[in-house]
This record gives sequence, structure tokens and C-alpha cells, in this order.
Amino acid sequence: MIIVMKPGATKEQIQHVIDLVHDFGLKDHPIYGTDRTVIACIGDKRTVDKGAIENAPMVEQIVPILAPYKMASTEVKQTRTEIPIGPKQFPVGGNKVGVIAGPCAVEGRDQLLRTADAVAAAGAIGLRGGAYKPRTSPYSFQGMREEGLKILEAARDATGLAIVTEAIGIESLDAVAEASDVVQIGARNMQHYPLLEAAGRCGKPVMLKRGPSAHLDEWLLAAEYVINAGNSQVILCERGIRTFETYVRNTLPLAALPALRRRTHLPVLIDPSHGTGHAYMVPNMCQAAVAAGADGLLLEVHHDPEHALSDGAQSMTPAAFGEMMNMLKRIAKAIGREM
Amino acid sequence: MIIVMKPGATKEQIQHVIDLVHDFGLKDHPIYGTDRTVIACIGDKRTVDKGAIENAPMVEQIVPILAPYKMASTEVKQTRTEIPIGPKQFPVGGNKVGVIAGPCAVEGRDQLLRTADAVAAAGAIGLRGGAYKPRTSPYSFQGMREEGLKILEAARDATGLAIVTEAIGIESLDAVAEASDVVQIGARNMQHYPLLEAAGRCGKPVMLKRGPSAHLDEWLLAAEYVINAGNSQVILCERGIRTFETYVRNTLPLAALPALRRRTHLPVLIDPSHGTGHAYMVPNMCQAAVAAGADGLLLEVHHDPEHALSDGAQSMTPAAFGEMMNMLKRIAKAIGREM
Amino acid sequence: MIIVMKPGATKEQIQHVIDLVHDFGLKDHPIYGTDRTVIACIGDKRTVDKGAIENAPMVEQIVPILAPYKMASTEVKQTRTEIPIGPKQFPVGGNKVGVIAGPCAVEGRDQLLRTADAVAAAGAIGLRGGAYKPRTSPYSFQGMREEGLKILEAARDATGLAIVTEAIGIESLDAVAEASDVVQIGARNMQHYPLLEAAGRCGKPVMLKRGPSAHLDEWLLAAEYVINAGNSQVILCERGIRTFETYVRNTLPLAALPALRRRTHLPVLIDPSHGTGHAYMVPNMCQAAVAAGADGLLLEVHHDPEHALSDGAQSMTPAAFGEMMNMLKRIAKAIGREM
Amino acid sequence: MIIVMKPGATKEQIQHVIDLVHDFGLKDHPIYGTDRTVIACIGDKRTVDKGAIENAPMVEQIVPILAPYKMASTEVKQTRTEIPIGPKQFPVGGNKVGVIAGPCAVEGRDQLLRTADAVAAAGAIGLRGGAYKPRTSPYSFQGMREEGLKILEAARDATGLAIVTEAIGIESLDAVAEASDVVQIGARNMQHYPLLEAAGRCGKPVMLKRGPSAHLDEWLLAAEYVINAGNSQVILCERGIRTFETYVRNTLPLAALPALRRRTHLPVLIDPSHGTGHAYMVPNMCQAAVAAGADGLLLEVHHDPEHALSDGAQSMTPAAFGEMMNMLKRIAKAIGREM
Repeated sequence: MIIVMKPGATKEQIQHVIDLVHDFGLKDHPIYGTDRTVIACIGDKRTVDKGAIENAPMVEQIVPILAPYKMASTEVKQTRTEIPIGPKQFPVGGNKVGVIAGPCAVEGRDQLLRTADAVAAAGAIGLRGGAYKPRTSPYSFQGMREEGLKILEAARDATGLAIVTEAIGIESLDAVAEASDVVQIGARNMQHYPLLEAAGRCGKPVMLKRGPSAHLDEWLLAAEYVINAGNSQVILCERGIRTFETYVRNTLPLAALPALRRRTHLPVLIDPSHGTGHAYMVPNMCQAAVAAGADGLLLEVHHDPEHALSDGAQSMTPAAFGEMMNMLKRIAKAIGREM
Repeated sequence: MIIVMKPGATKEQIQHVIDLVHDFGLKDHPIYGTDRTVIACIGDKRTVDKGAIENAPMVEQIVPILAPYKMASTEVKQTRTEIPIGPKQFPVGGNKVGVIAGPCAVEGRDQLLRTADAVAAAGAIGLRGGAYKPRTSPYSFQGMREEGLKILEAARDATGLAIVTEAIGIESLDAVAEASDVVQIGARNMQHYPLLEAAGRCGKPVMLKRGPSAHLDEWLLAAEYVINAGNSQVILCERGIRTFETYVRNTLPLAALPALRRRTHLPVLIDPSHGTGHAYMVPNMCQAAVAAGADGLLLEVHHDPEHALSDGAQSMTPAAFGEMMNMLKRIAKAIGREM
Repeated sequence: MIIVMKPGATKEQIQHVIDLVHDFGLKDHPIYGTDRTVIACIGDKRTVDKGAIENAPMVEQIVPILAPYKMASTEVKQTRTEIPIGPKQFPVGGNKVGVIAGPCAVEGRDQLLRTADAVAAAGAIGLRGGAYKPRTSPYSFQGMREEGLKILEAARDATGLAIVTEAIGIESLDAVAEASDVVQIGARNMQHYPLLEAAGRCGKPVMLKRGPSAHLDEWLLAAEYVINAGNSQVILCERGIRTFETYVRNTLPLAALPALRRRTHLPVLIDPSHGTGHAYMVPNMCQAAVAAGADGLLLEVHHDPEHALSDGAQSMTPAAFGEMMNMLKRIAKAIGREM
Repeated sequence: MIIVMKPGATKEQIQHVIDLVHDFGLKDHPIYGTDRTVIACIGDKRTVDKGAIENAPMVEQIVPILAPYKMASTEVKQTRTEIPIGPKQFPVGGNKVGVIAGPCAVEGRDQLLRTADAVAAAGAIGLRGGAYKPRTSPYSFQGMREEGLKILEAARDATGLAIVTEAIGIESLDAVAEASDVVQIGARNMQHYPLLEAAGRCGKPVMLKRGPSAHLDEWLLAAEYVINAGNSQVILCERGIRTFETYVRNTLPLAALPALRRRTHLPVLIDPSHGTGHAYMVPNMCQAAVAAGADGLLLEVHHDPEHALSDGAQSMTPAAFGEMMNMLKRIAKAIGREM
């Protein structure tokens, strides 16, 4: 942490800040420059509320230096994490790019099994589908819940796909963890800490989506909550951020891929369905994501998007999905990865 | 809802869309323009996933017309909602502007009671203070929890202030609702629907903060979850949004005040502490909020901000708070309100 | 400037960075911490492209410390700048709050004189009105140009109001500077440097609007271009930023007022017309701006907003303007300012 | 255009709006729904300031339907535009992906020729390099100007590369157009209309960068200014937008590629140097851009980034560039394009 004093700070004011630094258990290292004094603070105190020092007289700003997360960081673990998922133990985070596809919501046995068969045939390694749906409106379809979980299990039995489904609260977490191969924490819940802590104890890999306005630090700290509670099997999933753009539901920032690779050893998936909101853009962004180094994709596929109960606008048909998968395999090969 | 067709859509393609409109239980009303056809859809079907129609061939865009919330809207209830809070039943949403102040977190009995006395003396009508703290890092101070709730109750007994404190999950909601006069739902949990539904059954007024990237519709739909679950006592609290600006922790969009007044009958508070992140900006923004028509303020005050365990940088001292309150009273009077 | 090295940087890598620091004419001051080394760089070299050092091996990040502007800053000039404008030499930046009002565009002599009379009668000190209009579409009304300037001069003669009008390029700058009392540089041109430099030589006060996505530093550096070219008479005008919000044309960040007061001695106006985009929100935000400490307001008033050739949606009627001015006077008085 | 009335609008209020619609030369088409009345307006009046109607009593909102641009749109021209550039007349916008690379600024003859040779050898089809530099600070290096243009011409003679360089104002436009093969309009000038109009008469292809907070409509209207002034040779270049993200200089929204392909026939380049701000991210984002369907790339390459006079942090070395080009060729092939 670096504390920048305003020009004209007196000796006493500088000493007052140094005293605060000591109060926080840090070592001070003042540097007297031509224009102003800065105080470098040495010591690994990630728990200190650094902002408090900003209130001291003549302090201009506080500049943090250390990343606030530990176990998720490449500083603590240099080797990349591989997380085997599903009946076939597909290693997410390795050289192979894994695609997880399926409808936004489980709407019925037929719907799910048809889509599951289609995506398995096209080369997907996992099946997504919400049993519990967090919906913006209380009047929207809220999911088939327990019944949906059973249908997902049947789809796994029928296809061997890894099941990825969302837990929307701690009260349904056990049922979700029991039925699924990967427990999804949705974007809206990225900072619901009781759920993160419970997910840390759930015994299944966790897929943690980025909140629509989360900084990378905040996202990695959310992952740190899960790891800190005992579960190091965390897969990150970028699903787009909220910006001023209106031609997309969210802006999909693929530069997060190289940025995260520097910061964390955890695997990273990209969700171009939520990341764009429009089916016609999804293939372009899937291609881009694979080319940019994503460890996998999370995608919405529905056998009849025009009648989907949710997210119809961003769902691909099985036919379009199959065609795209062929393109993605060629791109993966071009960058030295498999699919 | 208006469906805009692309230029060149054929009769069959238009008919296909009209069939979809009927599938959704809506009445179609096509308008054949010079450049393109648009189809107005009539009927109150807020539950339909309108996006699905976007997938039909030659559809260009879907334009929603109706606000998706009902009970929170001024269309359903024209009179403004007043919510009496605390031992003195201060009516939030009436002509009086109410100020709720206190530390970010309850750190101990002395700390809280000292601050409570000070803010009560200066004219506050409520005391804020977190017993359960949602913290970005798992390594930060997580609050005094049950013990913190007891201290808050003691502060109410000592001062008569209404107690406002946050519920961070359904597992601690009952305890929070029991101890507090207003249950706060924090910005991170604005779309944690199980908590919203539980808050709808908790028997206490709910203060619902806006998420840092929530659209007004999403925020009002979150309020609708609470109301729909049985609790019409919802106070909204704007605490700033995430933008590209870096000189503030959040950008505080005060135009939300007139915008919300058009859309909803619920009272609206402003939180300039989180809305700026820096104590030196808080008085200016409190003055602005009162002048712009806020029903009240939520503020962080700490007797020793330099040593606060959280949010020190944005906490005012009791002295600065007292001085500011005098200014605010004059502004309230200038616009015809009381304080 | 602080250079943060990655953990594990070798002596040679650190020395390489120190050599680069010397290449740039700066003095190095390395600090060897527990986790990593940081190198503080001392010396006032605002012209150095600091980013270049980021490319050196094992550099993690570069943290700038000094504000990049000089003459606009409170470090160089502590007394606040007052800029007298118009025939009556109203001092913008002093204790009095000045309101500049008028139509978006000069549409004709009658229209302008009627509005000028009305705003003068209500207490405005300046008249705004575009003769040259920068329009998003080439097919929109582009302004009355030279003829518009003559009408503005006639309005000054009739009312004594200071004339504020925009220069949209260097080719029309001389004519605009000749006719007006304050030359406006619009938000779209905030970083059109040839125009800023020419405005620095134009001999009239300059009102510089903030670009819709400009950081405060970038804005103040744009002001620095004008000052550096010889004109210290710069008035800043905040007109809202582009964010994800859709209920407003722009989000108006009033916390810029205290933030700018810390950083610069230049006066700051607020433009709630562009800052909201909707006439019904303008009074609330004018009230907020005055209460938050604005040195003045820039406002759109049109005698017949429904038929305005531009910005009709955000224009007030003269009657609404007059009523609001009375409220603003009371608020100004409440905070110890005059109007 | 659709006008949405508030619930409870009277017959007279609806008639008043219909009268306004007629004033604007449009045909009305009212639809009386269950909750409210909407008025569809028919007629191609892109010049009307639609916002003005918002001021009429009981109008809730105005929803535009038609895209405001014409000549840039796929509605007017369905075939894709190919723009041949440089001595070899490389067709930008065809099946071949063209890479334009070079330093941020021309710093000298040696620097430019070395880099030009290197990028030509690696397969670039154009050379970028600023002779006139728009710099955020007046104290930064402002470019070699006329002398820089001569060096660029020498580089073209030596390598056959197409020269792309920026015009920062109309006063230097003629010299820039004379020396270059493509005239760049930078992001800061995207809405400097006098420059756009002059570029429309300059006789050379124009590369128009997106402003950092421009909506697609605004960008395409800026292109429309150039086309409308007589120059249909417009290449769009996406260089990232300003968002809340801090790990990048700009967020690069690649979904603009499919979105623009729907809306316009103009070719689109991607600039991952400005689009990320960090050299280590550039290869990932170049790969992503090609895979997503970009017509080409604009890139910063410097023979010694650590000592570059500007944009060092985002400049690749020639060696890294060469390596990346091989990867890009494989990706282009994978999606059926050439390079």
C-alpha cells in the first residue's frame, strides 16, 4: 500500500499517518519527493481497511499494491488447475476446450432429452439447464425445481453429459449439489456470501459467474470465499458486463481471458449467450472466445427457441449449434488446442 | 409490445409472427408502413418471454411498452406510500425528510452508543449499523452478528432511534427482523430472490438498496418480489451505480429521484456515503439529495473514522454531521419540506 | 510514479527497470518489501510516457502519483478563479450563482428575443443559444450560423445578458468569438486539440464542457490546453456522462463538484438539460446542483418546446423556468450564496 | 416512431399529440390498447426532432423505429463494400483479412523504416504511424507533423505498404490526405463534424474510429457525414469503449462485428492495441477478432516498446508480431478466410 500525501503536508501530519500505519501493524517507508511525500507501507495485512487512513489530514490518496486474494492467485499456485467434471471426468482447465450447452431452463422431460441428445451428438461435454430460475420478475416462470433436477439426472443417465445447474439459495443448495456435477452460482449471486460459503462445503465443483458490474478483484475474492470454505474446485465463467451499449444484453469483454490467466490458476469459461443476448451473435462470439483462449463455453441451445419459456432470444437451435461446433474444432486446432 | 419487422418481410413471415403473438395469448395489430411492417401486440401478459419472438425470421426488434412491475407502480396506486418506522413511528415518505445515520458496522457497545447519542442529538430519526456484514473479502471483519443485534437494541432503548440493519441471508433474517425496525437488503442482494421473498414475510419494513448496475425496472421488480410476498412496506435506497468514474466509489445519480417519483409510490432514500465513497464529498451530496426531493438520507457516521473497521474513508465525524444537519434543515425548508 | 515488480523479479530485472527510470530523467527509490519490490520514481516529468516501462520483464503495474495538469490545478494556484462575463461583467466563480438559459438553437429573431426577455426577467445572467449546431445526424438542422450570431448580438443589446454560444470548429471560431461573451466548446469537441489551442488565443472566456466519457484528469488537461495557449479564462461545465442508465439521456454526477473543487481553481457550471434529457427532471437537478455548490447553471428554455428544432424534450418553458428560479434563490440563500 | 401515451390520457390529449404528428409531416395510426393508447407514426422523416413530442401532456415515451442513417445501412445497399487501399490495392472488406501495423507515432526515419520492413515481412498490408498526434496532455509529444508525413511516404516507397495516418483537424487534412493511402479519423474526433465533412471531400479512403462512448447509431451517423459529403470509401474501426473495467485501457466489444454486419455494408477493422492497452493481451484479442469475423486489424508494433514516445505499454515487438501472424493465418483459414 502506498499513501500519497498532499503537497504542503507538515512533519506532524506525516508523523500522524505513520502512527496510523503502525496501528495497522504495517512498517512505514516514507519517500520525500520534490512535490510531495509518499509513504510506502510494508507487510501483508490484507484485512486492514486501508480506506480509513484516507481520512487523516493532508492525505491525498491510498494506492493498494497487493492483490487482495490469495488462494485463487497465481502468486500462491503457479500450476493451472484442472477440474474433472461429470461421468466422463472431462478435465476443465486442460488443453481440451469443453462446451456445455442446453436450454436456459428445464421445461420438461421431452424438451431436455431432445436437446441433450442433440448437443451430445455435436460434441458437447456438459448439459446446462436451470431447475431453479432466478427471474427478474416475480411473475415469470420460476423453474421446475425438484422435478427439474430429476429430469437433469435422467439426461445425464441417457447421455453421459456432465450436468451443470444453478443453486439460487442455500435452502436448495443440497438438492442441487446432489443432482448436479457442477453447481452454478449465477451472476446475481456472485456476492451472496452465505451461498458462496455453503458452496465451499457442497462437495461438487462450483462454476462461479461474474457479476455484471464486478471488477476482476471482486470476482476472484468471491472465488476465494468458496476456496476458503474448503472447495478449491472453482470454475470461473465470464458472461458479460453491463455497459452503455444497447445492441447487446451485455458487453462480452474477452480480454478478461488473458487478464485472468495472469492473475489466477482457475479455469475460465465464456458464456456468449448471456454475453450478447442475441442468437445471431453467438457463433461469432463462440469463435472469438475459443480463439482467445477460453477453457470452455457455456451456451444456450433450445429445440424450439421461439417457444422457449426464458431466454429464447439468445438460444441457438440444435442445427445451428452442430454447424458451429465444426467451426470451433477447426479454430481450437489452429491455436493448438483440442475439442 | 411492438414487433418491428425487417424491410422485405414476406406475407408468410409476417403471418408466422402473428401466429406466435396468438400463441402467447396476445392480440395482434399490424401496421404496414412505407419502409416496414410493425405489429403492435395488445394484452396484459407480463409473464411472456417476449424475447423469444425475436428469433422468428425477419424480425428486427421487440420493443416492450408496459412497465413490467405492477404493485410498485403509480399506475396501480396513485397515492404516495408513507411507512412509519421505529419507536416514534416517523413517517418515511411524507413531507418530513428523515435522516438515518450511524457506523458502517457495529464494532462494540461503546462505539455504537456514542455515535447513536451524537446522531440523535443532531436530529437523526434512525440509527444504521451492520451486525452482519457482507464483505468483498473473506478475510475482512464480518460483523458482530447476534451480539451486534443486541447492541443495536440497546441503542434503540437509549435513544428512541429506529434501528436499520442488514440481513445478508435468509438464515439470519429472523434474528435481524426481530431486532430491527427496518430490515435492510443490501445492494449485493438486490436480486437474491429467496431473501426478497423471505423479507416479504418478515413483518418489518424493508429498505431495498439499488444494485450497482441495476436498471430502475429491475430494482422495482425486486421491490415487487417483496410486495408480492405480502409486504408493501418497501423503502427504496439509491446508493450509487458503477460507471467509468474513478474519483468516486460509485456515481450517485440523483435524477433517479424524479424518475422514480413518476414510476412508483414508494419512498426513496439516498445514501451519499456509498454513493461517493469519500467523506469530504458527503455533505455536498446530502445537500443535493435533499434539494432534489429525497424522502430521506442514509449516512455513515463514526466517532473515529480513522480507526473504523470498515468504510472509514466515507464516514463523517459526529461534529461534521451535526454541522451539516443545520444546513440540511435550511435546504429542506427552502423547498417546502420539514426536517 | 510507482513501479510495482512481480514477485520473483531478479536483481537484473530490477536493475533493468532502474536503468529505464534513469533514461527518463527520473531518480529511482527502490523499496524491497516482503512480497515484492516497488520502485518509487522521483522527479517532475509529466511528459514521459510512463506506460512504456510496463513492457519491461517482470513489471506488474505502473501507478502514477502526480496529477498530469499544472496550471488548472489547486497545487499551482490556490485562490479560486473568478471570470467576469458579459456587458454586466457578472463574476462567474464568486459567491453569486449565475444562471445561463436559452434555447438549444437560435431558430429566428422572434424566438430568441422572446426567450431572452423571459429568462432575463426571471433573473438569468446569460443567454445560451447555438448558431452553429453539432448534430449527430447530417440530416438534422445545422443551425442558422452567421445569421444566428447576429440575432444573438441583438439579444444582448436588448437585454444586457451575456451571450454564450458554441464554436464547432476553428473555421468558425473567429466569428463566434467576435459575437459572443463566452465561447462554448461542446462535449463532442472536448478533445479536439486544434480547437482548444485556437480557443486559447481567441480573447474571450471559454466554457469547456466535459466529454460524455471523460475522466476528470482528461477534462482538466483539455482546460490545460486552453490555458497553455494563453487563455486562463476557462469555465468548466459538467453536462452528464454516458452510463448504462436508460431513463436519462446522460447520468449527471454532481459529486464532480466537490471533486473538482479539490483539484482545480476554475469555476464549474452544471447543465441539467443535457445532464438528464427530460424537462420534468430539470428542476430537481437544478435544485440539487445549486445545493451541491455549483457556481452556476446552463439550461435550455424554449418558448414552445413541442416545436423546438432540437432538444425539445429537455427544454423548459419560460413559465416553469421563472417558478424554478424562485426556488433556486431560496436554496442558494440556505447554503450562504446569492443569486 | 411510436408514441406511448400514459394511462388515463384523454381524447383531447391524444388529439393534441396527433396534431403534433401532423405538424411534423407524419401520418398517425393510433392503437387503443387495454392499458393505454399508442400512436404509430408513419413516414420517413429522419430529420424531425422526435423528442419534442415528449413534452406534450400525458406522453410517456417516444420509441424510434427507423435507423437514423441511410447510405451506410444495409437497407439501402445490400452488397458489402470493398475498399482497395495502397499501392497494391488490397481490398479491405473482401474475403481477405488485412493487417495494418506500425508504431503509435512516427518518431524518426530509422524507427519507422525498421518497423515497416518487419511488419511487411510478417505479412501486413498497411503501415500505421501518427505524424500528427492528438495527445491528452499539452505537454506530451505532439508528433513530427509534416516531416512525419515525408517519412511515411518513404516507408511506402520502400515497402509497398498502404499508409494509414491520422488527420487531427481540417487545417492539416490536405497534407495528410496527400501523403496517405487511408486518412484516419481518431476516436476523439468521431463527432467533429467539420472534419468529417472535409474528409468526405478529401479523395482518399477514410478510416473512422469509434468514439469511446459512441452508440453504433452515432458511429454510423458519423460515417454518414463522410458519405453524405461525397466519399463512400469509409472503413470503420472498433477500438474499444470506456466501461467500469480497470484492467484494460478500454473494453473491446467484439460483438460489434456481427451487430455491424447486420446494420452496415462498410468494412470493419478491430484495434486490439487501444482495445486493451496492454501488449500481453493483444495476441489473444487479435486471434479473437479474426475468429469473430473482422475484416482486418489495426495494431501497434514498435521496435523498442520500452522507449516508445507514446503507447509503449500496448506496442508489440516485431518478433511477437511475426509469431502472432502465423497463428492468425491458421485461424483465418479455419473460418474460411484468407490472410
